[in-house]
Amino acid sequence: MGIRGYAGEELLRILSRHPDAELTALSSRVEERVHISCLFPWTTGIVDLYCEDYTTERISNLADIVFLALPHKVSMEIAPQILRYKKKIIDLSADFRLKDLTQYEKYYEKHKSPELVKKAVYGLPEIYKEQIAKAEFIANPGCYPTGVLLGLAPAIKNKLLDTNRNIIIDSKSGVTGAGRNLKEEFLFSEVNENFRAYKVNSHQHIPEIEQELSYLAGSSVSVVFVPHLIPMNRGILSTIYIPLKKDVDAFTLRSLYREFYKNKPFVRIREVPNYPKTSDVSETNFCDISISFDHAKNLAIVITVIDNLVKGAAGQAIQNMNIMFGLDEKKGLL
Amino acid sequence: MGIRGYAGEELLRILSRHPDAELTALSSRVEERVHISCLFPWTTGIVDLYCEDYTTERISNLADIVFLALPHKVSMEIAPQILRYKKKIIDLSADFRLKDLTQYEKYYEKHKSPELVKKAVYGLPEIYKEQIAKAEFIANPGCYPTGVLLGLAPAIKNKLLDTNRNIIIDSKSGVTGAGRNLKEEFLFSEVNENFRAYKVNSHQHIPEIEQELSYLAGSSVSVVFVPHLIPMNRGILSTIYIPLKKDVDAFTLRSLYREFYKNKPFVRIREVPNYPKTSDVSETNFCDISISFDHAKNLAIVITVIDNLVKGAAGQAIQNMNIMFGLDEKKGLL
Amino acid sequence: MGIRGYAGEELLRILSRHPDAELTALSSRVEERVHISCLFPWTTGIVDLYCEDYTTERISNLADIVFLALPHKVSMEIAPQILRYKKKIIDLSADFRLKDLTQYEKYYEKHKSPELVKKAVYGLPEIYKEQIAKAEFIANPGCYPTGVLLGLAPAIKNKLLDTNRNIIIDSKSGVTGAGRNLKEEFLFSEVNENFRAYKVNSHQHIPEIEQELSYLAGSSVSVVFVPHLIPMNRGILSTIYIPLKKDVDAFTLRSLYREFYKNKPFVRIREVPNYPKTSDVSETNFCDISISFDHAKNLAIVITVIDNLVKGAAGQAIQNMNIMFGLDEKKGLL
Amino acid sequence: MGIRGYAGEELLRILSRHPDAELTALSSRVEERVHISCLFPWTTGIVDLYCEDYTTERISNLADIVFLALPHKVSMEIAPQILRYKKKIIDLSADFRLKDLTQYEKYYEKHKSPELVKKAVYGLPEIYKEQIAKAEFIANPGCYPTGVLLGLAPAIKNKLLDTNRNIIIDSKSGVTGAGRNLKEEFLFSEVNENFRAYKVNSHQHIPEIEQELSYLAGSSVSVVFVPHLIPMNRGILSTIYIPLKKDVDAFTLRSLYREFYKNKPFVRIREVPNYPKTSDVSETNFCDISISFDHAKNLAIVITVIDNLVKGAAGQAIQNMNIMFGLDEKKGLL
Repeated sequence: MGIRGYAGEELLRILSRHPDAELTALSSRVEERVHISCLFPWTTGIVDLYCEDYTTERISNLADIVFLALPHKVSMEIAPQILRYKKKIIDLSADFRLKDLTQYEKYYEKHKSPELVKKAVYGLPEIYKEQIAKAEFIANPGCYPTGVLLGLAPAIKNKLLDTNRNIIIDSKSGVTGAGRNLKEEFLFSEVNENFRAYKVNSHQHIPEIEQELSYLAGSSVSVVFVPHLIPMNRGILSTIYIPLKKDVDAFTLRSLYREFYKNKPFVRIREVPNYPKTSDVSETNFCDISISFDHAKNLAIVITVIDNLVKGAAGQAIQNMNIMFGLDEKKGLL
Repeated sequence: MGIRGYAGEELLRILSRHPDAELTALSSRVEERVHISCLFPWTTGIVDLYCEDYTTERISNLADIVFLALPHKVSMEIAPQILRYKKKIIDLSADFRLKDLTQYEKYYEKHKSPELVKKAVYGLPEIYKEQIAKAEFIANPGCYPTGVLLGLAPAIKNKLLDTNRNIIIDSKSGVTGAGRNLKEEFLFSEVNENFRAYKVNSHQHIPEIEQELSYLAGSSVSVVFVPHLIPMNRGILSTIYIPLKKDVDAFTLRSLYREFYKNKPFVRIREVPNYPKTSDVSETNFCDISISFDHAKNLAIVITVIDNLVKGAAGQAIQNMNIMFGLDEKKGLL
Repeated sequence: MGIRGYAGEELLRILSRHPDAELTALSSRVEERVHISCLFPWTTGIVDLYCEDYTTERISNLADIVFLALPHKVSMEIAPQILRYKKKIIDLSADFRLKDLTQYEKYYEKHKSPELVKKAVYGLPEIYKEQIAKAEFIANPGCYPTGVLLGLAPAIKNKLLDTNRNIIIDSKSGVTGAGRNLKEEFLFSEVNENFRAYKVNSHQHIPEIEQELSYLAGSSVSVVFVPHLIPMNRGILSTIYIPLKKDVDAFTLRSLYREFYKNKPFVRIREVPNYPKTSDVSETNFCDISISFDHAKNLAIVITVIDNLVKGAAGQAIQNMNIMFGLDEKKGLL
Repeated sequence: MGIRGYAGEELLRILSRHPDAELTALSSRVEERVHISCLFPWTTGIVDLYCEDYTTERISNLADIVFLALPHKVSMEIAPQILRYKKKIIDLSADFRLKDLTQYEKYYEKHKSPELVKKAVYGLPEIYKEQIAKAEFIANPGCYPTGVLLGLAPAIKNKLLDTNRNIIIDSKSGVTGAGRNLKEEFLFSEVNENFRAYKVNSHQHIPEIEQELSYLAGSSVSVVFVPHLIPMNRGILSTIYIPLKKDVDAFTLRSLYREFYKNKPFVRIREVPNYPKTSDVSETNFCDISISFDHAKNLAIVITVIDNLVKGAAGQAIQNMNIMFGLDEKKGLL
C-alpha cells in the first residue's frame, strides 16, 4: 500500500525480480483503478497489475504479507485493520518505531494505536534477526537510523564510549529521502548546485537513534545529529565521530567491528583509506563501513554509506520479509 | 511585479548591479509586506527593500518603468492599468507577443486587452532596436524564440531557404525555464539523471517563432519544433536544421551571419568546430552561434546557446530598458 | 577482456546476476594481478575473482565465450587469436561493425583483420536474431546506432520514406558514453551545468547507421546526425525526424511499428503524449519508442530512449549471448 | 599567472568587471601565445588579451600587482623573483601560508624560499585587515580554512572553548575545489550521483586551520577535520561542532558573533532555522554563518557557507587587492 512514493516504487522494483515473491495487489490513493504502467512507465512488460485504492479487507485477502509505504500518521490507522485479518505487515513509516509514545507525539501527533507499538519488532536484521524471524509485524527502520546504527552498534555494544564527550553524527542524504513531496524546496532548480543542512540537531530520527543505542548500551545514550541534503537522488553517507575510552586502539576497534558483522551478509567493512562512496552501494542492500582513528584524541571516525531507498527502506523491508518467511535473507537482493 | 519567480529574481540580481538603475519597489502576491532578504537570502546586504502586493497605482507612482514578470494571463490585466499612469512597461509574459489573437487564444485563453496587443513592440533588440528605442510598452520575447530567431534570422532575411523542405528546430532547455512551478515532474528526483522531450511539435512558442520568421521572410514560414528538458538549471541550446537553396555555400552563409550581427554586442559567431556550450553564456546576456554545413544535402546546422534567464528573459528585458532610456545597451550587462 | 571501462563494468554487473552464466576470468591491462574488489568496491561479496592481464590463450581455455570491451583498434588484434581457439566472441568495439573498410579506415585506421570483418554478425537482435543464433562472432552495435536503428527500421523497411527530404537525427547522450576517458572536457566541473553538441554531422557512428539503414532499405540511405552531451551518467535519447511519403498516415505508421516489434521483448511502443524518458529505461535493456506525426508536413517525429551501457552495450551483448547459446533472450536481463 | 585553472579563470571573471583594475597580462604554461578567447570562449568580447608563458621580468614590468594562481610548489619559486622587481603579489597557493616549515614539508616538500615565509601576510581580511593594508605580499587563505576560520574565530578569540572536548569540523566541497585536475576520480561519471569523504582527518589544510586558531586563542588549538566531495561545481559548507564552557548561552554567543563581524561587509550572520545554503553565496564573496546551540550538551553547531572560487580563492584575493591599494574592500565584488 502506498505504491506511488519512492519507497513504494522501489519495493515494486525489487519484488518484481524476487524469485520467491509474487506481487498480487498494488494499492494507492488513486481516484480510479489504473494500470501500474500508467503510473510508472518502466513497469511496462515487467509488472502486469492494476493499482487501486484497496480496502484493508480486500488487500488482506489477496496477500500473505502487506508492505505499508504510507505517510507517517496514516500507517497507524491501517496497520491494526490488517493485523485483524492475521496478515503479516512490514511498515515502512515511522509510526511503530518509537516505544516511548511521548517521543512519538513530540515529533508527530497523538498515537492512534498505542497498544500495537509494543507488538512491532524493530526491523534491523543485523541486530534483531531472531525476533524478526518470529514476528508478524515489523517497524522497518528509518533511512538515517539504519546507516547510523550500523556504524555505532559495535562500539556501543562493547562499551567503548567515553561518555564525557559527545557522539556527533553528521549525515548527508540524497533527495529521494524527502519522498515525492511537492514543496518548492525540493524543485530541481532549488536543489541542484546547492548543498544545505536542515533540521539541525532537531530531526525526527533522533529519538529512534537514541532509543536503539540506549538498548545496545544498556543505559541512556544521547547524540548530536545534523542532516544535510545532497544534490543527487540516492544515497546516505554518515560521518560519525565516536569519542572512545583511553585504552581502545585502532586494531582492537576494527577487530570488534569485523567480529560484530562477520555473518551479516549486507555489511562490508572497508579498509582505510579506501573510504566508502555512496555509489559503491547504490541500488544495493549493502552498508559499507570504514573506521578511521585519531590516536591523539581517542576518537574514531566511522563512515557508513547506504542506498536510502534500498537498505534504508525497501531493500531492508524485503530482507525482513525473507527472514520472516524462512528464506535466505539475501534472496532477491543480490 | 512578480519578483518571486526565477525571471523576477534574475531581474533583481541584474538591476541590483546596474549603475544607472535604481530599484524602488518590489511587488509580489505576498500575504503581507516582507523584507526581500526573507524571500531571497542572497539579497542580504545587497538590496534593502520590502516586497509588497502593490496596487498598480502605487507602483506607477514609485517607478519610471515597471517590469512584469507575472504568469501568462495575469499580465494582460495589469498592463493596461499601468499604461494609464503613463509609465513604461516591459512585460516578460507571453500575453502581448502574438499579434494574431486566434493563435494566442489557441494556446492560452480569450485575450482581455486585445487593443493593446498592437501597441506592444516585440523586444528582440537585434531586430527591432529602433522601434524599441521609441516604445513605451515592450513584449519581451520568450526564451526559446530568442535563441531560435537569432539562429534563423540571417538565413530567412536573406531568403536562402529551400521552401520544399522543413526547418527543424530541436531545442534543449535547463529546468529554470519551467519557472518555480510546483509540479511533480519538476521535483529534483524526477529531473535529475533524466532527459526527456515534451510538447513535441506543439509548444506554445511555435506561433511566436513563426510570426517573427514570417515577418522576416515577408511570407508565411512554418517550423517543426521539439523542446527537451536537460537536468541542469540554466541554458538553452537549439540545434536548427535549415534547408538551403542549391547555390548557397558555407562561406557566403557565414559571411551573411557575421554581417547581420556585426554591430550587435550580444551575438557572437563561433568558429566550427568550436561549437558553443551553454556554459559559455551562463549568467551572461550573450547568444553564441555556430554554423555547420552539409554540402551534399544543402543543409545548414546552426547551433545557438543562451542563458534562458538572462538573454532569454531578464537580461534581454534590461537590454530593452537601456535602449528605451537612451543608455548603452550593454550597461549593467557585462 | 577490458573490464575496467564502463561497458566492462556493466557486463560484470549483469553477468554476476545472470542465472545461467558463470564468470570465470576478468582481464584488463593491470600491472599485476588484483582482486576485482580493489578496482570496483561494489563487487565485494558479489564477485570473487582476480583481474589479470590474460593472454588470449589462457582466457580461451577458461571460457566458452569472451566479451571484448576493449578500445577500438585493439579488438581487431585480439579477436582473431581467440577465434583460433574456437571460442565465441562478442566484440563491443567498433572494429568489426563496418563492412566497408574504406569507411572504417576513414574514422579509425587501416584494418588489421580485414578477412574477419565479413564473418562478424551485426548483433542487433531485433533485426538479426536468426543470424546471431548461428554466429560465433558478434560485432555488438554502437550505442547511438542501437537507439537510432530501432527508431528508423520499421519506416525504412516498409519504404515509407520521402527520399527528397533528409532524415535528421538529433541524439543526446549521458557521459558514460564517452568511456573512462581522461580528458579535461569530461571532468565533472566541465560537464556539470553544461550542455553541448559535438562532432556535428561528423561522428564515427554515421557510417554504421547508414550501412544498416541501407541494408534495410535495399538502397543507399544517408542521414544527418548531431550528437550532444547531457550532464548525466546514463541514457541516450534520439529525436528522429523522418520525412514520409504523402499517403502515410499516423495510424498506419504506428501499426507498422507495433507489428515490426510485436515479438521483440525489449522494444516498447509508447503512446503519445506519454513520451519516453531516459529514466524509464535506466539500468534496463529496453528501448522505448514514441511516434509523433506532423500531418501538414508529412513528417514523423520518432523518439527513442535506451540506457547506453545496457541496451547500448553490455545488456545487448548479453542478449546476444543468450541467443547464441539457445537461452531465452531475456535471461538475466529483467 | 596560472590563468588556466579554476581560480585563475575566476580571477579573470571578477577583474574583467572591476571598475578600478585593468588586466594587463595573462600568463600560463601555454606552448605558444594564444588569445584568451581560445582558452575560455566566454571571454570573447569581454577580455581582449593574449595568454603567454611570461617571464617574471616581463610580467613585473606590465603590472602593479601579480596574482599567482599556480600549483602548490611552483609559487615558491616564482614569488621571490617578482618581489625582486618591487611588485605586489597575492599568492593563491599554499606555499606561504604555513609559518612552521616542518608542517609545510610534511604535506608538500622542502621549502625553497623559507626566508620569504615570514614576510607573507595571511590574507584573511576579517582578521588581518590592517596588516594586509600595509603588505606587499599576501598568502591568500585556502578554501576550507576561509569558511572554517570565519566560523570559529569569534568563539576562539573570546575563549569560550571547552578544551576537554574536540572541535569537530565536517566540511563538504563542490568539485572545482579539486582544480582542473586530470584524475579518473574527478571525471563526471565518477562524481555525479556520488558523495564521498576523502583525506579523513589528514587533509593538508589542517595545519593552516590550527595555526590560525592557535594565534587567535593565544595557545595551541587542535581540530578534527573531515572533508567531503559534493556532486556540484561550487560551494563549501562546513558544519562545525564547538564544545563550549559551561556558562556560555546562545544569546551571548550570537551577540559575540554579531559584534565580531559588525563591520565586515562580507560576513552575514543568519537567523536559525534559516540555515545558510551554498546557493545563497554562489558567485559572491560572502560567507554566511548560522549558530545553533545544544544547551544540554554545551555545544554550538556553527554552519558556514562560501563559494570556494570566490571568498575561498579569487574573490578574497581581490578583496585583499582592494585593501592593499586603499580601495573600498567591496569594490568589484558586489
